[in-house]
Amino acid sequence: MSNGDIFVGEVIGTAILILFGAGVCAAVTLRHSKARASGWVVIAFGWGFGVLAGAYTAAPLSGGQLNPAVTIGIAVDTGKWDKVWVYLLGQMVGAMLGAVLAYLVYLAQFNANVTSGSGEDGADDDGPTPTLGIFSTIPEINNPVANLITEIIATIALVLPILAFGLTKGLGESGTTALVVAFLVVGIGLSLGGPTGYAINPARDLGPRIVHSFLPIPNKGTSGWGYAIIPVAGPLIGGALSGLIYNAAF
Amino acid sequence: MSNGDIFVGEVIGTAILILFGAGVCAAVTLRHSKARASGWVVIAFGWGFGVLAGAYTAAPLSGGQLNPAVTIGIAVDTGKWDKVWVYLLGQMVGAMLGAVLAYLVYLAQFNANVTSGSGEDGADDDGPTPTLGIFSTIPEINNPVANLITEIIATIALVLPILAFGLTKGLGESGTTALVVAFLVVGIGLSLGGPTGYAINPARDLGPRIVHSFLPIPNKGTSGWGYAIIPVAGPLIGGALSGLIYNAAF
Amino acid sequence: MSNGDIFVGEVIGTAILILFGAGVCAAVTLRHSKARASGWVVIAFGWGFGVLAGAYTAAPLSGGQLNPAVTIGIAVDTGKWDKVWVYLLGQMVGAMLGAVLAYLVYLAQFNANVTSGSGEDGADDDGPTPTLGIFSTIPEINNPVANLITEIIATIALVLPILAFGLTKGLGESGTTALVVAFLVVGIGLSLGGPTGYAINPARDLGPRIVHSFLPIPNKGTSGWGYAIIPVAGPLIGGALSGLIYNAAF
Amino acid sequence: MSNGDIFVGEVIGTAILILFGAGVCAAVTLRHSKARASGWVVIAFGWGFGVLAGAYTAAPLSGGQLNPAVTIGIAVDTGKWDKVWVYLLGQMVGAMLGAVLAYLVYLAQFNANVTSGSGEDGADDDGPTPTLGIFSTIPEINNPVANLITEIIATIALVLPILAFGLTKGLGESGTTALVVAFLVVGIGLSLGGPTGYAINPARDLGPRIVHSFLPIPNKGTSGWGYAIIPVAGPLIGGALSGLIYNAAF
Repeated sequence: MSNGDIFVGEVIGTAILILFGAGVCAAVTLRHSKARASGWVVIAFGWGFGVLAGAYTAAPLSGGQLNPAVTIGIAVDTGKWDKVWVYLLGQMVGAMLGAVLAYLVYLAQFNANVTSGSGEDGADDDGPTPTLGIFSTIPEINNPVANLITEIIATIALVLPILAFGLTKGLGESGTTALVVAFLVVGIGLSLGGPTGYAINPARDLGPRIVHSFLPIPNKGTSGWGYAIIPVAGPLIGGALSGLIYNAAF
Repeated sequence: MSNGDIFVGEVIGTAILILFGAGVCAAVTLRHSKARASGWVVIAFGWGFGVLAGAYTAAPLSGGQLNPAVTIGIAVDTGKWDKVWVYLLGQMVGAMLGAVLAYLVYLAQFNANVTSGSGEDGADDDGPTPTLGIFSTIPEINNPVANLITEIIATIALVLPILAFGLTKGLGESGTTALVVAFLVVGIGLSLGGPTGYAINPARDLGPRIVHSFLPIPNKGTSGWGYAIIPVAGPLIGGALSGLIYNAAF
Repeated sequence: MSNGDIFVGEVIGTAILILFGAGVCAAVTLRHSKARASGWVVIAFGWGFGVLAGAYTAAPLSGGQLNPAVTIGIAVDTGKWDKVWVYLLGQMVGAMLGAVLAYLVYLAQFNANVTSGSGEDGADDDGPTPTLGIFSTIPEINNPVANLITEIIATIALVLPILAFGLTKGLGESGTTALVVAFLVVGIGLSLGGPTGYAINPARDLGPRIVHSFLPIPNKGTSGWGYAIIPVAGPLIGGALSGLIYNAAF
Repeated sequence: MSNGDIFVGEVIGTAILILFGAGVCAAVTLRHSKARASGWVVIAFGWGFGVLAGAYTAAPLSGGQLNPAVTIGIAVDTGKWDKVWVYLLGQMVGAMLGAVLAYLVYLAQFNANVTSGSGEDGADDDGPTPTLGIFSTIPEINNPVANLITEIIATIALVLPILAFGLTKGLGESGTTALVVAFLVVGIGLSLGGPTGYAINPARDLGPRIVHSFLPIPNKGTSGWGYAIIPVAGPLIGGALSGLIYNAAF
């Protein structure tokens, strides 16, 4: 695969992933969304099917890694590091693009995020909603050590199975593999997402956080930069550990 | 594939899609339905499995496109336009047929849509329910530009992956592909359906809207013709853009 | 396949189907069940995965039809009627066996179905629950013509795709096909189950109804024999019509 | 497969299974979890996708049995007992490891399990939560005979299909088979988990119970040793019966 194909594939695939992922968080969070308050099961399946859509679309171009933790895990496993920068660059650009697309899909909802009831009916007049949680993760209990442990273990639960599935050959080339990975991500959300909201992907968290800090959303609230290092460091450590565990055990 | 096979396949497949899709909206909306108020996750999975059933059934006859946006996207990608009219005709006829079938499945519930409690128990006496949302989409915030953007992006999220999956060979020929597309549609519903109810298919919206305007449903409410252009134009633009993006990137 | 293999396969497969199906209805209905009141999505997925488990288990022996409507649809399509009686006999015996197994799984819950709070805590003291809905279908609005139409169309939505999928070769031989059929059944439940509870299978309704009329369940309530003909006749008509439609269109 | 590979595979695979399974129970149970009170559907899918992740990861090393009931069922079926002890040892070690990992993922939440509101906001001040249900099963109605019957039948519903699926060749080698087994486990949870919480796996219940009795969780409550024999004996009996039924019928 050429550097150009890898870059384009990772941009498109990660953009689709974040479009679905930030989208489902907007769907559940924002007033005037038909899916408002539809619960954790919707969040987890929305992110999982975002992986399905993104990985399968990107597969013919880049293999559909879409996640620096996956890329690092594969590099530690295989010892091949020369293309890593292309993957990471594409993933970051794609994550930012996806966050902008999700913002555009929910444009009217974001613009209605004001104190007084807005939109056509003005019915549910409960003030503006903080919007960072739509873009990036926020821990329920702010405890850097515990949050880091959570992200490391949750990322191993993602990357170690992917390595064992033989996905270095390309995440989405087989529809079945893409389905398995999608439901794996749903499972991580359901089971391991409770404490920190499961970044498990540095680009998924950092890219949309950058976008959030620039977007003209009314009453958008903080971009949470004090926490931003955890969902980058944790997944990177988890990805590297997955490569080491895979090499030792398999 | 002969024009006759394409037409029959698209009629049957689109009818099954709308039977499931309008059906699940009726299931969640109408009084005296066992699934009443069962939430957004039921809506999204109901539509997704409708695509599964319709596409897989239609596959041996027409490839199971079931959606003018998919047909346009494939035509822009391949440059072959001669069969497009057969697909679109079949999709529109099928969408109208499916809406009638869903009406028949919920016939007693529709006929009980009156002010006083009806049905055998007369328990939940909360007046008639507007019925357009069972057949066609209604935006939460009526903003033509924002609604159009939502439908365009959500349609690209459908058609671009389908093109990348190589579905021009036939949506349902492989069960795995049909499953991937079904869960892709579930994901679009969960993630991108909040603002407008995700038409992402002109036939899915226009066909049932025509049927709604004629059906003898008590207290059926408006057929919403003022909005009808958006869920036709948005998906068509999104489908064409998908073909252009696919040609440029892949 | 020998008559003995067909009979044993259909008994085991249909028993597993009804164990899951009646089981999930018990899980959602009965006091002292961890899944009580967990909603329609649980019902629909429980029945769908019951089809998955039963069809895949029965496949090597009988092809895993598990439903007289499927068997009749295949017979109308292929014109081969000589084995039909073996399938139907196995399906009825299996459905009755499965209902007994579901009763045994929820034995303590059924025995606690009394007026005063029972079980270890006695907390939720809301009187006995009618139990027929765990075993057989009950329409929300008792309207024989509308109920029959609902069952006919919902059964066509099951059998016509199955015929088009080529399942006459054996429902569960390919895991992918079994998954497609399972999610098809989930979709029928979500979308078309609202009015009558989707029998779509004469054995699924009649076998457990017979068992319900004999089981020593406290306060079990009526066995609803006045309605019993509809969920037998509707699916048989729907299955036969599916065979005719398939022959005409494909 | 060497004894070493089997042991390592079963340790890793069962650890992943319990990480997801205990994790989802923590997610739904503990205060300061984003998934708190998200319902039975989350529990059932979380455990099912834990099987998917664990079995698929372990497949190249050990075939991914992850459950003494499955191992016993295969041994009764095939008559080969010489490797059984390696599987069982790996499954017990893995189950204990997985319980520790789930504890670490929810470390801050477990440490906040005190009477007064803790965590950063102190908002939901409703006292400590019993934690045994996160690790091991607890029956809704304590009735040893009924509980044993429930576990036996639910385990047969797991192991008999697995034997029929031909999984003795390795649970996860085919992604499709892993998906079928995952949804089978989801279905058992939805349909048969109501009375006892569906251990259906002696290692899944006993390993985490041992860990629970040692972990320094505030206000952790009883480890429920009086019930511990049922979720070991029931699944072992159910696994052996599955082997006998399979040999007789197939």
